[in-house]
Amino acid sequence: MTGAEVLVRAAMERGIAVCFANTGTTEIPLIAALDKYPGIRAVPCLFEGVCTAAADGYGRVSGRPAMALLHLGPGLANGTAYLHNARRARAPLVNLIGEHASWHLPNDPPLAMDIEALAAVASDWKRTSAGPETLSRDMAEAVAAALRGCVSTLIVPNDFQLAEAPFLPAKTAETFFDPVSGDAIENAVRLLSSGRKTAVLLGGRALRLGGLNAAARVRAAAGCDLLCTSFPAFIERGGDLPGVRRIPYFPEAALDLLSPYEGVVFAGANEPVTFFGYPGIPGKLLREDQEKIFIWTEGQDEIASLEALADGLGAPQSPARPRGYPKAVDRSALPSGALTPEKVCMVLAALQPEDVIIVDEGLTSAFAYWDLSAGAPGHSLMSVSGGAIGYGMPCALGAALACPGKKVINLEADGSGLYTVQALWTQAREGVDVTTLVCSNRSYRIVEMELIRSGIDPGGTAAMALTHLSPPVVNWVALAKGFGVEASACSTAEDLAAGLSRALAEPGPHLIEMIL
Amino acid sequence: MTGAEVLVRAAMERGIAVCFANTGTTEIPLIAALDKYPGIRAVPCLFEGVCTAAADGYGRVSGRPAMALLHLGPGLANGTAYLHNARRARAPLVNLIGEHASWHLPNDPPLAMDIEALAAVASDWKRTSAGPETLSRDMAEAVAAALRGCVSTLIVPNDFQLAEAPFLPAKTAETFFDPVSGDAIENAVRLLSSGRKTAVLLGGRALRLGGLNAAARVRAAAGCDLLCTSFPAFIERGGDLPGVRRIPYFPEAALDLLSPYEGVVFAGANEPVTFFGYPGIPGKLLREDQEKIFIWTEGQDEIASLEALADGLGAPQSPARPRGYPKAVDRSALPSGALTPEKVCMVLAALQPEDVIIVDEGLTSAFAYWDLSAGAPGHSLMSVSGGAIGYGMPCALGAALACPGKKVINLEADGSGLYTVQALWTQAREGVDVTTLVCSNRSYRIVEMELIRSGIDPGGTAAMALTHLSPPVVNWVALAKGFGVEASACSTAEDLAAGLSRALAEPGPHLIEMIL
Repeated sequence: MTGAEVLVRAAMERGIAVCFANTGTTEIPLIAALDKYPGIRAVPCLFEGVCTAAADGYGRVSGRPAMALLHLGPGLANGTAYLHNARRARAPLVNLIGEHASWHLPNDPPLAMDIEALAAVASDWKRTSAGPETLSRDMAEAVAAALRGCVSTLIVPNDFQLAEAPFLPAKTAETFFDPVSGDAIENAVRLLSSGRKTAVLLGGRALRLGGLNAAARVRAAAGCDLLCTSFPAFIERGGDLPGVRRIPYFPEAALDLLSPYEGVVFAGANEPVTFFGYPGIPGKLLREDQEKIFIWTEGQDEIASLEALADGLGAPQSPARPRGYPKAVDRSALPSGALTPEKVCMVLAALQPEDVIIVDEGLTSAFAYWDLSAGAPGHSLMSVSGGAIGYGMPCALGAALACPGKKVINLEADGSGLYTVQALWTQAREGVDVTTLVCSNRSYRIVEMELIRSGIDPGGTAAMALTHLSPPVVNWVALAKGFGVEASACSTAEDLAAGLSRALAEPGPHLIEMIL
Repeated sequence: MTGAEVLVRAAMERGIAVCFANTGTTEIPLIAALDKYPGIRAVPCLFEGVCTAAADGYGRVSGRPAMALLHLGPGLANGTAYLHNARRARAPLVNLIGEHASWHLPNDPPLAMDIEALAAVASDWKRTSAGPETLSRDMAEAVAAALRGCVSTLIVPNDFQLAEAPFLPAKTAETFFDPVSGDAIENAVRLLSSGRKTAVLLGGRALRLGGLNAAARVRAAAGCDLLCTSFPAFIERGGDLPGVRRIPYFPEAALDLLSPYEGVVFAGANEPVTFFGYPGIPGKLLREDQEKIFIWTEGQDEIASLEALADGLGAPQSPARPRGYPKAVDRSALPSGALTPEKVCMVLAALQPEDVIIVDEGLTSAFAYWDLSAGAPGHSLMSVSGGAIGYGMPCALGAALACPGKKVINLEADGSGLYTVQALWTQAREGVDVTTLVCSNRSYRIVEMELIRSGIDPGGTAAMALTHLSPPVVNWVALAKGFGVEASACSTAEDLAAGLSRALAEPGPHLIEMIL
C-alpha cells in the first residue's frame, strides 16, 4: 500500500466517512487513495474555509469527525479561522494537509510555509509525519484526539504519501474520558443544597440530550437555573427539553442576568467572559464573591458529571416537565407587514419543523430568536462559538451531510455570509436540504452598534465605508443562482412565511434573501 | 492624541494613502482615527483575503505600501495566504491587526488566538506593541521595513489604541539599500566575458524599467540571455523593453531551457527550483556544474547591481533595441471561431492597450499568453508569485487604485477566481477600471494535468469530484451582477474581441466569462 492509501484506510476504519476537500499537486496520491477506498465520500469545496467550517458542522452534529483535506500552507491558512471556531466548539475534526516532498522543502519552493507553526494556532493536536512507517499510527492518533473533542491536524509530505507504507489494523476507535471528580460533585451538591440563588452553566456535551436530561434532574432537585454561554456550539432544545437561558452578548445585559446568583456550577463550560474587553466593564462576568464549582474539566465527560450531580442531590430519574422559563410562544400567530429582524425570528420560530437543525449566524438580526424559539418543537441549534464569522453556510452543509434525513435552516447575516458564499455551490453539488435565510440589512450592524456604544460618530466617511455594505447592493438571489441554488427575495413577513414553507417542502438547497 | 490616531497619522505621514479594511470591535478606535485623518482612504472589503491581496497588488505596482487593516486572529488568518504571496513578491505591505485589550487577553475570550505566532508564518517583520508610548515608533519601523520589500505586521491591543499616546514627527521615509558587492560584480563580469553560454536571471526590482534598461546594456555587451522566474511579481515589458524569457512551470520544459547554460548571473532572483517536488526530477533546476554568480542579496538594490555590472562590462549607456527573442506577433490578425485558451491569449495580446496592467492568474488557460504578448505595446504584468491562488481579482483592485489613470485587465482562472470572488464588490464600490476575463473551463485543470502526469486515472469518482467544477455550472455573469459588476459571457473569439473592446472603452469594472 502507498502511504496515502494507509492514511485513507486508517481514517475510514476509524469511522471517517466524509472528506471536505480542496486539493492540489501535493495531495495527488490522496486523491488516488480516495478512489481506491470509496468508503470516504470526497466533497469538493471552492475555498478551504468551506472545507473546515463544513467539517466543524459535521462534527458538532454527529459527534464524529469529518476530514478536511487541504493544500499546503495557504490552504491551511484559508481554513484556519473556522478551525478556530471548531476548536472553541470542541468539535471532533481531522485536518489533513499535504506538504511538499521532504527532500524538496530545503529548496524553499514558492508555496513553502511553516505549516506546523500555522497549525499550532488553531489545532489541539498537530503532527508532521516523520516517515511512511508512522502514517498508520499518526492517523489513528489524530482520529483518537479528534474523538475527544479536538481539532487534529496531520501534515504529510508528498513523498511519504507516495512511498510503500505499513498498515496497522485498527483497534475500534473509542472515546476515553477521565473519571468524574467526586470532590467536585460533593462541593456542587453542597452549593446547590444551600438554599442560595444558584445556576448551572452548561456547555459542550452537557447541551446534548443526555446532559440536558441530567440537568433537568438537577434543576428539579435543587431549584437552580440552567444557563448556557452566548454562543453554544450545539444545543438540543424545544419540545420537552428543559429551557436553558443564554447569557446575552452585550456585557451590561450579561451582568444583569448573572449578578444575582450567589453560586454557579460549571458543567462543560468555562467561566463566562465578555466577548471583547470594554473600558470600565470587568472582563469576567462573575464576581470573586460568587462561588464557582467546576464539575468538569477538559477530558472529563460532562454528561457523567451531571448525572453524578443529580444522583448526589437525590434527584428523581424523570422529573416532571419543568415550568417557568421558557414560556411556549404562540406559534399560530404569524406576523405581517414589512420585515423586521423580530418578525424574521417570529416567522422562523413559528414555521420551523420538528427535528430541524438551526444554524444561527444571524447576529444582530437574530437577537430575538433564542427566546422566541424556546417553545418550538424539538430542534438543534448551532452558533458561532469562536466568533470567526462566515461559518454559517458551510456549517449548514456539513450538518446536512451528517444527518441526511433532517432539514437544516441557516439564519445568516449578510456580512457574515459573504465570507464563505462559495459554500452555496457545494450545497447545490451535494443536493443537501439546506434553506438559507439571509438577513439582508446591508451593513456590518454589529460594528455600527459598537461604534455608537463607544461614542463615535457612525456617520463619518471611514465609519460609513467600513460598516455599510452598499452601494452597490449585493443581490443575493443572483449570487445564489450563480452557484446553482434556487433563490428568491422577500420584504414582508407574509412572503417570508410563504417562501420558507415552499423551500422546506422541496428537496435540495434554497436561499431566501430577506430585505430588512 | 489617542494611540489609534498616532498610528494612522504616523502611517499617513510616511506615505500610506490607502487602507484595505475589514474591521471589528477591536479596531473601533482606528475607524475613528481614519475619520480624523482623511489622508488615508478606507476601502472596505468583504473578506480579509481581498484586503491583503489588494494591498499586495497596490504595493507591487506602486512600490509604496498600502495598509491592510484586519480584525483579530481570524481576520489575519483569512488574509494570510495572500500575505504569503506578497512576501514572495517582496511587495511593500503594512498589515495592522487589532488585538483584544491587553488586560482582557488572559481571560481567553472566544476570539483570542496567538496572533503573533500566526503573523510569523507570512510576515518578514512583526511586532505586538508593548504600550501606547511605542506606537509612533512601531508604525514608523513597520513602514520602513515595508519599504525594503517586506510584509510588516503590527498588532495593537485595543486599550493601547484608546489610550493617550505620544506622536513623534516623521523623518521622511527613505529606502536604504546595502552597498553593491564589488566582488560579486567582478565575478559576474568574468563569467559573462568568458565566451561561455550565459544568462542573467532577473527578479524583483530588476524587472522594473531601471533594471530592464541596465539588463539590456548587459545583454548588448555580453550577448547573454535574459530570463525571469515562472511567476514574476511585477514586470514591465512589451514596447521597446528588452524581451525576457520566462522559465516554464513544468519541470521538463524548465530543464530544457536551462540545461544549455554554462553559467547564470542572478539579479533580484534566487536559484530556480521546481514548483513541486516530482519523483525522479531534481528540485533545483540548475546543475552543480553550471556556474552561479549572485550580484544581489536581500537588502541590496538589484537595479544598482545591474548598472554596476553593465558598467563593469563597458556597456554603452543606450544600446540599440535588442533583436531576436521576442519576435513581435502580428497583432492585426485576430482569431475566430470557438474559444480555446490559445485564442483567448491571442485576442488579449492583440487588443491590450498601451500602458495596461495585466494581472495574470489564468494558469493553464494562460500558458500561451507570455510569448504572444511579448511584442505588445508597453505594459506591466503580475503573476501569482507565491502560488496561493485567488490573488488575481483583489490584486487587480489594488493595482487600479495605485494607478487611477491606467486600465487593468485580469486574466483569471475560474477555480482561482472563486477563492476571492468578493473582490468584485469592492471593484464596483470603488468604480475601478478593471476588466476581468474569466477562463471558464469549469475545472481545476492544473490538478487534472498533474493527476495524468502521475499516471493516475483522472476519471475516478474522487478524482472527478475534486477536479471538476460542474455540476452545477458556476454562472459568472450572475455572480458579477450579484456584486454590482457589469458582465457578459462569450464563447467565440469574435465575441470576446467585441466584448473586450467595449469593456475597455467604458469606465468602471467589467467581467467577461469566456466559456472554454
